[in-house]
Amino acid sequence: MIDICLFGAGLIGSVHAKTLARHPRVRFRAIVDPRREAAEALAAETGAEIWDTARVMEDPSIRAVVIASATRTHADLIIEAAARGKAVFCEKPIDLDIGRTDACLAAVEAAGVPFQIGFNRRFDPSFAEIRRRIDAGEIGAVEQVIITSRDPEPETEEALAGGGGVFREMTIHDFDMARFLLGEEPVELFATGSCLVLPYYARLGQPDTAMFVLRTASGRQCHINNSVRAAYGYDQRIEVHGARGMLQAGNRTPTSVTQSGVAGVRTDRPLYFFVERYQQSYAAEIDHFVASIEDGRTPAVGAADGRKAMILCEAALASVKSGRFEPIVI
Amino acid sequence: MIDICLFGAGLIGSVHAKTLARHPRVRFRAIVDPRREAAEALAAETGAEIWDTARVMEDPSIRAVVIASATRTHADLIIEAAARGKAVFCEKPIDLDIGRTDACLAAVEAAGVPFQIGFNRRFDPSFAEIRRRIDAGEIGAVEQVIITSRDPEPETEEALAGGGGVFREMTIHDFDMARFLLGEEPVELFATGSCLVLPYYARLGQPDTAMFVLRTASGRQCHINNSVRAAYGYDQRIEVHGARGMLQAGNRTPTSVTQSGVAGVRTDRPLYFFVERYQQSYAAEIDHFVASIEDGRTPAVGAADGRKAMILCEAALASVKSGRFEPIVI
Amino acid sequence: MIDICLFGAGLIGSVHAKTLARHPRVRFRAIVDPRREAAEALAAETGAEIWDTARVMEDPSIRAVVIASATRTHADLIIEAAARGKAVFCEKPIDLDIGRTDACLAAVEAAGVPFQIGFNRRFDPSFAEIRRRIDAGEIGAVEQVIITSRDPEPETEEALAGGGGVFREMTIHDFDMARFLLGEEPVELFATGSCLVLPYYARLGQPDTAMFVLRTASGRQCHINNSVRAAYGYDQRIEVHGARGMLQAGNRTPTSVTQSGVAGVRTDRPLYFFVERYQQSYAAEIDHFVASIEDGRTPAVGAADGRKAMILCEAALASVKSGRFEPIVI
Amino acid sequence: MIDICLFGAGLIGSVHAKTLARHPRVRFRAIVDPRREAAEALAAETGAEIWDTARVMEDPSIRAVVIASATRTHADLIIEAAARGKAVFCEKPIDLDIGRTDACLAAVEAAGVPFQIGFNRRFDPSFAEIRRRIDAGEIGAVEQVIITSRDPEPETEEALAGGGGVFREMTIHDFDMARFLLGEEPVELFATGSCLVLPYYARLGQPDTAMFVLRTASGRQCHINNSVRAAYGYDQRIEVHGARGMLQAGNRTPTSVTQSGVAGVRTDRPLYFFVERYQQSYAAEIDHFVASIEDGRTPAVGAADGRKAMILCEAALASVKSGRFEPIVI
Repeated sequence: MIDICLFGAGLIGSVHAKTLARHPRVRFRAIVDPRREAAEALAAETGAEIWDTARVMEDPSIRAVVIASATRTHADLIIEAAARGKAVFCEKPIDLDIGRTDACLAAVEAAGVPFQIGFNRRFDPSFAEIRRRIDAGEIGAVEQVIITSRDPEPETEEALAGGGGVFREMTIHDFDMARFLLGEEPVELFATGSCLVLPYYARLGQPDTAMFVLRTASGRQCHINNSVRAAYGYDQRIEVHGARGMLQAGNRTPTSVTQSGVAGVRTDRPLYFFVERYQQSYAAEIDHFVASIEDGRTPAVGAADGRKAMILCEAALASVKSGRFEPIVI
Repeated sequence: MIDICLFGAGLIGSVHAKTLARHPRVRFRAIVDPRREAAEALAAETGAEIWDTARVMEDPSIRAVVIASATRTHADLIIEAAARGKAVFCEKPIDLDIGRTDACLAAVEAAGVPFQIGFNRRFDPSFAEIRRRIDAGEIGAVEQVIITSRDPEPETEEALAGGGGVFREMTIHDFDMARFLLGEEPVELFATGSCLVLPYYARLGQPDTAMFVLRTASGRQCHINNSVRAAYGYDQRIEVHGARGMLQAGNRTPTSVTQSGVAGVRTDRPLYFFVERYQQSYAAEIDHFVASIEDGRTPAVGAADGRKAMILCEAALASVKSGRFEPIVI
Repeated sequence: MIDICLFGAGLIGSVHAKTLARHPRVRFRAIVDPRREAAEALAAETGAEIWDTARVMEDPSIRAVVIASATRTHADLIIEAAARGKAVFCEKPIDLDIGRTDACLAAVEAAGVPFQIGFNRRFDPSFAEIRRRIDAGEIGAVEQVIITSRDPEPETEEALAGGGGVFREMTIHDFDMARFLLGEEPVELFATGSCLVLPYYARLGQPDTAMFVLRTASGRQCHINNSVRAAYGYDQRIEVHGARGMLQAGNRTPTSVTQSGVAGVRTDRPLYFFVERYQQSYAAEIDHFVASIEDGRTPAVGAADGRKAMILCEAALASVKSGRFEPIVI
Repeated sequence: MIDICLFGAGLIGSVHAKTLARHPRVRFRAIVDPRREAAEALAAETGAEIWDTARVMEDPSIRAVVIASATRTHADLIIEAAARGKAVFCEKPIDLDIGRTDACLAAVEAAGVPFQIGFNRRFDPSFAEIRRRIDAGEIGAVEQVIITSRDPEPETEEALAGGGGVFREMTIHDFDMARFLLGEEPVELFATGSCLVLPYYARLGQPDTAMFVLRTASGRQCHINNSVRAAYGYDQRIEVHGARGMLQAGNRTPTSVTQSGVAGVRTDRPLYFFVERYQQSYAAEIDHFVASIEDGRTPAVGAADGRKAMILCEAALASVKSGRFEPIVI
């Protein structure tokens, strides 16, 4: 049994809390969140206690922490937890600043603790299966990757203003998927963004509609399309073309019901948003983290992956301004 | 919190055990199974203790029992638990004998305890959604129901010899679905069975391949097709035709991956068998049972439903012999 | 070039007329129909002339006739054309009376002319492909066939009153499909019919909603479901289960467009009715007829097939009355 | 009846020849092709005669010409036919040179004859339906268009060396689709190409794998992905995102057969290549051309559309070199 504490009782924190509470080889000990009410509700639901940061850090029985608090708190928590020899699972991004991100990487490396970044989509059963079949050679060498990633609803103006921006909060997952599936590091990136959905995106200088093209050294290509609003729900699809065929992962639906009538043949909309769509992948990434600690293995998706995705975000921001392929120096 | 004990640590018992262990409003206290090894493994996994029947029955803190033991043990357990004022969830069938089934119904009624029969498919999200849309009038009056129900692999000869037969073990679920969806009680039933799959089905006088037609008093019709072996996995589909359209529930797959190549376009086989396919419905039926106890409500699927499905099995056995529509006297 | 005349300028006659006019190896000479207006319109569209029956029969340059006139005229036309040495393509049924049907068979056999019955579905690309894969052993021995056959709209009361009844006009195609796919002759048939759609079906003693179970000597089974009204259009699906898997043919749609919105994900209704759905099979059956004449081959679907399907209709009518499996004596 | 002659008896010429021969309001008079054997075979099949260019141009009864000969012959034929007052249908591209393209436009305008360019995909039932629903406002304002366009097999080295290049021969159709669906003219274009499929593409300086991003003045975006080889057949899909939903057109298949077995659930590959996939659109574009002549209407897709698509090709070639968004000056 591994004793774990959680930082952050927000939406994603509560997803992790439920996973931790149910995990057969985890003792879910405590939740840390300055927002007392949220913390208490989650504690009641999961049986965890409410602690403060110091107590978590000082208690040597706590072998691992899951960081799902505000982005600005990530770096300090990572550095301290690593220094205390605790394994760290951290939601993306590590930090909005590359310098502080590098400091985290250094701290984790120096401490030699397992570190996993929350790129949960790598653990989605369909996306993982696509990667498995690529690795098994089922479609030959990868040539093009096409990623469709559209949120069902925009962020509020407040959340948008307080966050890291659309690329660093939303596209970052798609950049990680691109790296996960291309089989080679992208070396160039083109991006274009528009404000077509809501006026406050324009006011805050954030694109709500964007397209990207990435390219690796050997010429493999990846397209990503993003929108912050899809009327039909969360649209998360992946398509990989190789020399011998194509792999696609489609959306998942709440039911398998089809209704045929005078208006046509109708099936469910996709599952609404990330909590529903990626339920299995959130559980699987925590399980991978726990197994990595148990087995003394390095988690499959680590701090360097978090850093590289951030560098792709920087290149995207530069490309939107320059209107050209920007080099990616990793 | 409701204290519950489980009878039976077999395949279906262990499905219920995991649900009970995870349920936020259940204290899963104990498992009863004479097969010590199975019981211990399940106890270790779920944190429940191992008790004997007497202790369960005598402990007034145990408010409910889940019966997933061998069919021949059901009736005695039901009668005793009801007499002790415990709520009862029992796997189908209640008993292979209608007389003993009636005795159970009488005991449950006399005790006034909540009783739920394990017709889990009513809680499958897709099948439940079909029923919801029928009730909402989305396809008008129901006219025909078509149920496809095919197991991925036959029972072993030993299991087949020791069980209640294909109709009472397998088709019984389809008969319940027919009643669930037709909106009227069937009054006539036609059945035909063949032995096409494995010689020991013929030796044991059991059809491995069967078709059924049911009919209600107003003329609504239902077709069921069964096979004990489907090379592509568990095939569980439902189709309902009404005056204004059709509702269909398809199979579910492990992933949403499609692979296109020279050999065609290939998607996943359906989820393998009932444990995978009906995972959500097993959890939902237990949740319904728990909520019924909490709220003092009668569970939506009770002893009378178990009895009626058994009567349809009897009519099917008679029809196979007579070659004609057999009346269903409920 | 083969010179062909057509009897009947109705709906199905005009389908055949267009096929004949376009066929590169056919000279489409003349149309016979007492309804002058219909005949003239079709003649104008296709370039054929308008003749009477005698002229067709007496002209030795006419090597073949296509009979798409009223059912009651079929037998006389078949017998005379055969006697004149002309090849005959005739719409189903040959005749509503088995005695007269047998007389036609005898006439055709005596004359030694090619005869083809209009069971066009055998030439549907999807159904033909299913048969091809069965023959290639791709699913092993056939065990069950399930045929869904539902018209988009009922016949008018007048047409229903004047026709041969639902089984002989509609189900007859499904009976032929059952024979085409089972790989063995059915020997028993069970049928049940209800009047759920329109009162005049009941008044005229015709079921508008029906289910059938057929069985071959070795125990292979076939289910057919029929309705005279499907709100979503013509529903024509086939499913064949074998020892090693399942083959399904779904409906076809006018476009491949999918629309996703708040109301769900919507695709086209099936093609509306037989003219649209079976367009390819109507052309293919005429091509097969022409090629059979050219090559001196017996058409793949002949008079005996027309007769056997009629016998299944008779058994179905008997079963509806008796409520039991009726033997099929062919 | 409109008398029409055809230039070119190659692959696409023979598609048009069959359409012309079958069209009920067309007299398909003659074929012109210096390759005598091809011309004769097509003449035999369709009943047309073999003429030379002069005879076609000089015969005033010939009201229209269909030009499907080699690209380098297009401009002269267009200019002469227009001068003679004949309506012109011309395969894309008009000419590889913009100057000569402009000369053709001027000639057509001066003569006032109907001119239609062979952007057949606008007449594909599914793509046309998408445009119809966009126009009907069913998905609100268009925001992004995604075009997947992948050939089943590469051109031979000889054909590639002799042609206009991948962008002008293949992508040109996708550029027209982008214009057809975006609802606004693209003003910027980014392109990147790689040589991943066959060495002779690299030798000839042609990309075999490419991605494009187009952008309109208001910020609408379009992505195109191309490959000259798809192992599973011709891949022609379109996806349009708007404020209220998404429209998709998928591939079409030869049959609707699904086969389920131990290896998964398998459906047909897409129709093989353009002759099969766009059969309906080739017929519909000729019908539109004929109707335009009859009604004195300007065809819906004209010389200016051909010219604009060529300008997008030029911008794409420039962008591949510059690595940046290139302006589109139309």
